[in-house]
Amino acid sequence: MALLSYNNISGKKIPRIEALSDGVFAIALTILVLDLRVPVAASIQSETELFKAFLGLTPKLLSYFLSFMTLGIFWTAQTTHFNYIDKSDRHLNWISLFFLLVVSLLPFTTAFLSEYIKFKFSIGLYWLNLLLLGCMLYLHWQYACKHNLVNIDGAERKEVDKTIRNRIIIYQALYALCALACFINTYISVCAFIALQLNSGFAIFSKRVRNLPLKQ
Amino acid sequence: MALLSYNNISGKKIPRIEALSDGVFAIALTILVLDLRVPVAASIQSETELFKAFLGLTPKLLSYFLSFMTLGIFWTAQTTHFNYIDKSDRHLNWISLFFLLVVSLLPFTTAFLSEYIKFKFSIGLYWLNLLLLGCMLYLHWQYACKHNLVNIDGAERKEVDKTIRNRIIIYQALYALCALACFINTYISVCAFIALQLNSGFAIFSKRVRNLPLKQ
Amino acid sequence: MALLSYNNISGKKIPRIEALSDGVFAIALTILVLDLRVPVAASIQSETELFKAFLGLTPKLLSYFLSFMTLGIFWTAQTTHFNYIDKSDRHLNWISLFFLLVVSLLPFTTAFLSEYIKFKFSIGLYWLNLLLLGCMLYLHWQYACKHNLVNIDGAERKEVDKTIRNRIIIYQALYALCALACFINTYISVCAFIALQLNSGFAIFSKRVRNLPLKQ
Amino acid sequence: MALLSYNNISGKKIPRIEALSDGVFAIALTILVLDLRVPVAASIQSETELFKAFLGLTPKLLSYFLSFMTLGIFWTAQTTHFNYIDKSDRHLNWISLFFLLVVSLLPFTTAFLSEYIKFKFSIGLYWLNLLLLGCMLYLHWQYACKHNLVNIDGAERKEVDKTIRNRIIIYQALYALCALACFINTYISVCAFIALQLNSGFAIFSKRVRNLPLKQ
Repeated sequence: MALLSYNNISGKKIPRIEALSDGVFAIALTILVLDLRVPVAASIQSETELFKAFLGLTPKLLSYFLSFMTLGIFWTAQTTHFNYIDKSDRHLNWISLFFLLVVSLLPFTTAFLSEYIKFKFSIGLYWLNLLLLGCMLYLHWQYACKHNLVNIDGAERKEVDKTIRNRIIIYQALYALCALACFINTYISVCAFIALQLNSGFAIFSKRVRNLPLKQ
Repeated sequence: MALLSYNNISGKKIPRIEALSDGVFAIALTILVLDLRVPVAASIQSETELFKAFLGLTPKLLSYFLSFMTLGIFWTAQTTHFNYIDKSDRHLNWISLFFLLVVSLLPFTTAFLSEYIKFKFSIGLYWLNLLLLGCMLYLHWQYACKHNLVNIDGAERKEVDKTIRNRIIIYQALYALCALACFINTYISVCAFIALQLNSGFAIFSKRVRNLPLKQ
Repeated sequence: MALLSYNNISGKKIPRIEALSDGVFAIALTILVLDLRVPVAASIQSETELFKAFLGLTPKLLSYFLSFMTLGIFWTAQTTHFNYIDKSDRHLNWISLFFLLVVSLLPFTTAFLSEYIKFKFSIGLYWLNLLLLGCMLYLHWQYACKHNLVNIDGAERKEVDKTIRNRIIIYQALYALCALACFINTYISVCAFIALQLNSGFAIFSKRVRNLPLKQ
Repeated sequence: MALLSYNNISGKKIPRIEALSDGVFAIALTILVLDLRVPVAASIQSETELFKAFLGLTPKLLSYFLSFMTLGIFWTAQTTHFNYIDKSDRHLNWISLFFLLVVSLLPFTTAFLSEYIKFKFSIGLYWLNLLLLGCMLYLHWQYACKHNLVNIDGAERKEVDKTIRNRIIIYQALYALCALACFINTYISVCAFIALQLNSGFAIFSKRVRNLPLKQ
């Protein structure tokens, strides 16, 4: 019996999940910056040569930027969930941990994509990572709602619930479209991914409708 | 006398211990992801070759996954303790620090195991790490209970105490069995470890008995 | 509509932004320390040889120190903003994320500068990073003030606002002057940057006027 | 005037300093674990060969352990200060930052010592790091007391003050003695350092006099 009821006392502290998440995200956000190495070339003698050596780092800078944007989007999504989720149990705890697992893989799949940008396989791998992120996020919210771990009720809950679910589903549908575009051309696929993440970060195609106050 | 009484004023802040733990766990969780390097092969010209190069990363992905699961289990265990421990002293502080010491070694012993999967020595090393994690965890709980650093009393305390102790002892007994299996075959040993961690993460063989409310 | 109003419920939690920032800053502060490698030289047989091998690390130590100072300045600046900002929305959230993006690039541009100290291009790159840090910081404060996300009003707000804006503008003007000095000599430029950061850290040219109490 | 009074509004948030410290300490604690690489030897064919390859990692494990102990001691010391310090200003903020600067150098000086254990220079370098840690810690406490940033008064303050100061001074005196021992033999020096850190961690030579309650 002890073994069984242990699951009832574990995984209840949301601040710890949030702190661990912030730690893992901080590391994931900066992993690709570790790949930015100062070019060491004994032959660099002029400003032009140095500039060219720097230009050689552009793909790494771009994949760092893309990885940062994507992680920023999913970090923001997770913080949004925790605006409303104020209780936890061991299952929600493990959903969060698996979410962090796929979060920490994103820098790798992004670097893989940037290295093998002409291959459908690397597009597929990157998309798989985004899909897993979306699935864990959806599961996270659904589980919390179903087991009454949220702090909102009635009409507000219904509306927040619909907003969060739609957001995930619409973006995942768009990601799938981007990925499918690789059968035309992988560059179209990559550009579509980037455009989508930029829109999400800068909120270009959106307008303020009204402001839902945050439960304290 | 000054030297002596210093030990009475140090190590009292639990939020700091929790924050440091979350930091160390976040790093330990992601250390093995740093080993996932994009394969650099000038010879990769087709989707099939790229797929094969990716398959070469599978052992690293698996050991990353195993290390993540195990660290997740022990992180959850530590957060469970801190649901009930609300005071600290310099000894509990150092028990936590030594716990973090063995936590940070786990990615190494996991990678060691995955590299030398056919050797009993690497099974033994991995098991030693799990044993030390269990010992520190047990010591952590026992010390806190003995010195009245917990926020529960009476029957509830007795029950939580028994649940936590049993959980650690049962899992350590199972880990020891897994390790012993290496004298038959090291692969059986590794599979048993993985099965155990998966069960712990996904709570397959468990059922909800009743929910203990968390002390606020 | 769901897609649109999602932007109204996301990015509201300041403690999460602060925790993520502290994580990213902690990593950025220590990235260059990872470059400090113990010299491995089989030929080191005497104290003098060891001392010389250590001296070879001086440029790395100096660039670590410079990077640490600069990051410390911008970390302090961000914490100062959050003394007064007590609400957030998705735009402020993303401004913070882009601030962290340029923060995490600073160790790289500092190392680049230290490696190619004779080149105007590396001065320009370092200055561009400082400029982007300043811009994000300015935008951060301006957006918060404009959208009433701060906890001060009236005369106090006016004064704090002016102090923060002036601080950023004056320092950015000085940074630009330092960068321009590279057209005379790049060493003058680097020394000016270092002098400026030292002054900012040690507050040499400043005096306590009066102490504004911090809003609780 | 703006430039001057900026120093009056910055660096006031202790929770941010604590969070940044926990982040930097978590990284410093685990830096040397990154050096623990699984031995890659195609020639390893037997358990004995694997065991020997593992033994080759012992110096790295020991220096990891020593670095962990020392960082644990100084982390505990800093948390003890913050039990009593509940206000901050820009100077205390920068003292904390410089403390973190020397904290993050410790893994390097420890690895340097472990690599060049026969040289007086590496003993001196390690000792210099401990000395700087002690100085920053002393400065931190002295500044906080002098500028009334602590939450205790009267007799309690006097006693805590004396305890903390004595602790730092006694340990620094012992560290200096350990360092001086290198003129006899560097191994004596290293063993003395290790013995001192072990005593500090395990509190072997200490007894509980009485427990000072922690101000809430």
